[in-house]
Amino acid sequence: MPVIDIELSEKLTISCNILAQEGHGNLTMGHVTARRADQPYLHMNPHDLGLEEITPDDIILIDFNGNQLQGSGRRHSEYPIHTEIYKMYPQINCVIHTHPFYSIIVGATEGTIKPISHEGSLFAGIPLFEETSLLIRTPALGRAVAQCLDGRHAMLMRNHGVVVVGESIEAATVYAALLERAAKMQVTASLVGPGQTSTSVESEGKGEQVFYSKNIYGFWDYFVRNLPNVQRSG
Amino acid sequence: MPVIDIELSEKLTISCNILAQEGHGNLTMGHVTARRADQPYLHMNPHDLGLEEITPDDIILIDFNGNQLQGSGRRHSEYPIHTEIYKMYPQINCVIHTHPFYSIIVGATEGTIKPISHEGSLFAGIPLFEETSLLIRTPALGRAVAQCLDGRHAMLMRNHGVVVVGESIEAATVYAALLERAAKMQVTASLVGPGQTSTSVESEGKGEQVFYSKNIYGFWDYFVRNLPNVQRSG
Amino acid sequence: MPVIDIELSEKLTISCNILAQEGHGNLTMGHVTARRADQPYLHMNPHDLGLEEITPDDIILIDFNGNQLQGSGRRHSEYPIHTEIYKMYPQINCVIHTHPFYSIIVGATEGTIKPISHEGSLFAGIPLFEETSLLIRTPALGRAVAQCLDGRHAMLMRNHGVVVVGESIEAATVYAALLERAAKMQVTASLVGPGQTSTSVESEGKGEQVFYSKNIYGFWDYFVRNLPNVQRSG
Amino acid sequence: MPVIDIELSEKLTISCNILAQEGHGNLTMGHVTARRADQPYLHMNPHDLGLEEITPDDIILIDFNGNQLQGSGRRHSEYPIHTEIYKMYPQINCVIHTHPFYSIIVGATEGTIKPISHEGSLFAGIPLFEETSLLIRTPALGRAVAQCLDGRHAMLMRNHGVVVVGESIEAATVYAALLERAAKMQVTASLVGPGQTSTSVESEGKGEQVFYSKNIYGFWDYFVRNLPNVQRSG
Repeated sequence: MPVIDIELSEKLTISCNILAQEGHGNLTMGHVTARRADQPYLHMNPHDLGLEEITPDDIILIDFNGNQLQGSGRRHSEYPIHTEIYKMYPQINCVIHTHPFYSIIVGATEGTIKPISHEGSLFAGIPLFEETSLLIRTPALGRAVAQCLDGRHAMLMRNHGVVVVGESIEAATVYAALLERAAKMQVTASLVGPGQTSTSVESEGKGEQVFYSKNIYGFWDYFVRNLPNVQRSG
Repeated sequence: MPVIDIELSEKLTISCNILAQEGHGNLTMGHVTARRADQPYLHMNPHDLGLEEITPDDIILIDFNGNQLQGSGRRHSEYPIHTEIYKMYPQINCVIHTHPFYSIIVGATEGTIKPISHEGSLFAGIPLFEETSLLIRTPALGRAVAQCLDGRHAMLMRNHGVVVVGESIEAATVYAALLERAAKMQVTASLVGPGQTSTSVESEGKGEQVFYSKNIYGFWDYFVRNLPNVQRSG
Repeated sequence: MPVIDIELSEKLTISCNILAQEGHGNLTMGHVTARRADQPYLHMNPHDLGLEEITPDDIILIDFNGNQLQGSGRRHSEYPIHTEIYKMYPQINCVIHTHPFYSIIVGATEGTIKPISHEGSLFAGIPLFEETSLLIRTPALGRAVAQCLDGRHAMLMRNHGVVVVGESIEAATVYAALLERAAKMQVTASLVGPGQTSTSVESEGKGEQVFYSKNIYGFWDYFVRNLPNVQRSG
Repeated sequence: MPVIDIELSEKLTISCNILAQEGHGNLTMGHVTARRADQPYLHMNPHDLGLEEITPDDIILIDFNGNQLQGSGRRHSEYPIHTEIYKMYPQINCVIHTHPFYSIIVGATEGTIKPISHEGSLFAGIPLFEETSLLIRTPALGRAVAQCLDGRHAMLMRNHGVVVVGESIEAATVYAALLERAAKMQVTASLVGPGQTSTSVESEGKGEQVFYSKNIYGFWDYFVRNLPNVQRSG
């Protein structure tokens, strides 16, 4: 029987706390899972706590069928978002599902992110999941979500929220923060007019110039340094 | 002569404090009443204090004719909003009337809430009271408000504010917070365009999937944990 | 030679601090004057300090020709806004000139306040000073401002700021706070559409129901209680 | 070999901290350089720290070819923005390049600042750099930026950010703060409509009445007094 991985739980906790700070909190809703490469089970924050409230002791463990292996907190019913993405994309080790304010608005209106600023270039043209705005509670719906994601870092979900993924907790968390920043700028810019956007050549160039791996991990370090309470009880 | 119910006064105080935090404050305006099932008198916050300033000692008691039974604070003149709703809906035990910024804007423009996000689904199509934007100071106007409410959780009041009701202080308070969140998203989304909304089947489904009773009370607990000063003098 | 009135200086300081909190601050710009009834000289906050930085020791005294009678701080060059209003309206004992963000936007676009909420009813149809957006540094321009005010509580100044007046520091300060709140709601509501407004009968009725004198002074007390640092060095 | 100038490093640090407070921060991105008159090398904040994190010990020294002369922090790759501006404008002693939210939106939509408020008058009609939204990493691109600036205090960069310059750290920093304030008002005012703006005569007049040198340095002093942590380790 797998046991709780303290190091992963601590990093997952920090991810939840950063996400809350970056506009991904919505009462006690939203969930983040992570695994070490190729593990067929997941660490997950539990139901009933806000993302900013999570501590490492709260983390639970579930298998790919949603069975709870460790931890006393309640499992989120939308676990198939996570399990089906891990099954389809072996290189993904962290999946985030939240209800960020501006990203939901973009999903309900323009339907995708436009490359207005550096952040926008990273998510230009990401897919919109339109099949349902209800919860993703079955493996079939989870597979539909995973397919719609189509290998991108993030996806909008109509009248619901977002999915963001990464090779690591650090990468997925930074992408999620950047996505909501891009969405906020896009929504705000809409009040002035359609405007100019970066060309696809420019957007790709920014991937190399701004969002290279070392910088993504540097942004994670920045977020960690600026959390109000980084030192938490283990 | 009924006496002040300490437990109800403490819960009513927490409700006022949560409402202030969730954008329902407007100087010293806004009032919340509550009763235990079938009681023909109400606990109410007094005039002249902001919602975030209320303490349990401030709560007053009035009967269904607005006569003040207990407490030294000034009674709000709009008590008929409360008394007439309790008379018409026996299952309601908490009534909130406030001036939340975004809900007022929705009331003055689109006139009802659209199901853009989960929160919006809960209030899709709620009624708008249009008869007057003046204060509701007579039983006749109070009855008109109660009738307009039409059994929903909430109602917008043209150029004035909102009414939110619930079976308990917890439920009404959470509904009020969710209403203003839905209104804020709707107003902000208007920047971008008309957009997509959840279908009525989806909105109903979310009532069962997201806003079931246990979750509503879980949201109340979340708000209580995150109040800046939960422990207050009794 | 008149001397500094400690009580008036303390109240003027609190006014400046409240105004800063209510969105009237703009770096070190903005000025408030006050007098006791019929005094031909003014207490004024000095140049070079933000409204939230003012303490009673900073207050200066000027006569109706702008001569500085007391205090070492620099006098604002736009004193004629104040002196000419006092000359034209003997019942006015406090004049505020500031650059509040949303009121400037209303002045540059729709040009007057609409009665969308309670606050808006108080300022429905207030005048817009259009003659210049430059500073008001001459008695002639000051008189033009005073005439444009036309006996209302407040006036917008095109591409510049606002003037708010009252029978007392308390009244003018509360009006100024309510004006910026009304302007913020109007600007925000514009993103949804034209919308409904209170009728003129309703707006007048709200003057009696909501903005009667006792309530205005109650709002002042509320602001004072909620200033971060009410107790300041004398 | 030039050495770190403690006084300049401390002032540059304060500039970075003020910029962060005034909406110019964007994770660890953004850079400020300064020199004493005619010096052919620059003090610069390093890569990998947010503007609000910089301390005097972090400042690095580079020459006009981007060679790092002092300091262990990583040099920003966009140094040619700075070096080419200093070469073309000998009177400039501080150059700021940041990604401020509202200024980016103006750059992507209306393309220049309009004189809606006092602040807007200072930047009315500033140029927009449109050649690329990618990073400015070559002397040729740096020269194009410098030429586009055309002697103004500031320039917008399409889908990227801004450049702001001044005769001193104080002046450039205050201009940068005023630019973002003007951009925020312009974006927000777009909600309501096209609106009125100051005439060019008025805008020029405000340069003399409001933005004269003594006042600009007074605004710097105001920002310094209001930084959360002005006293920092040297």
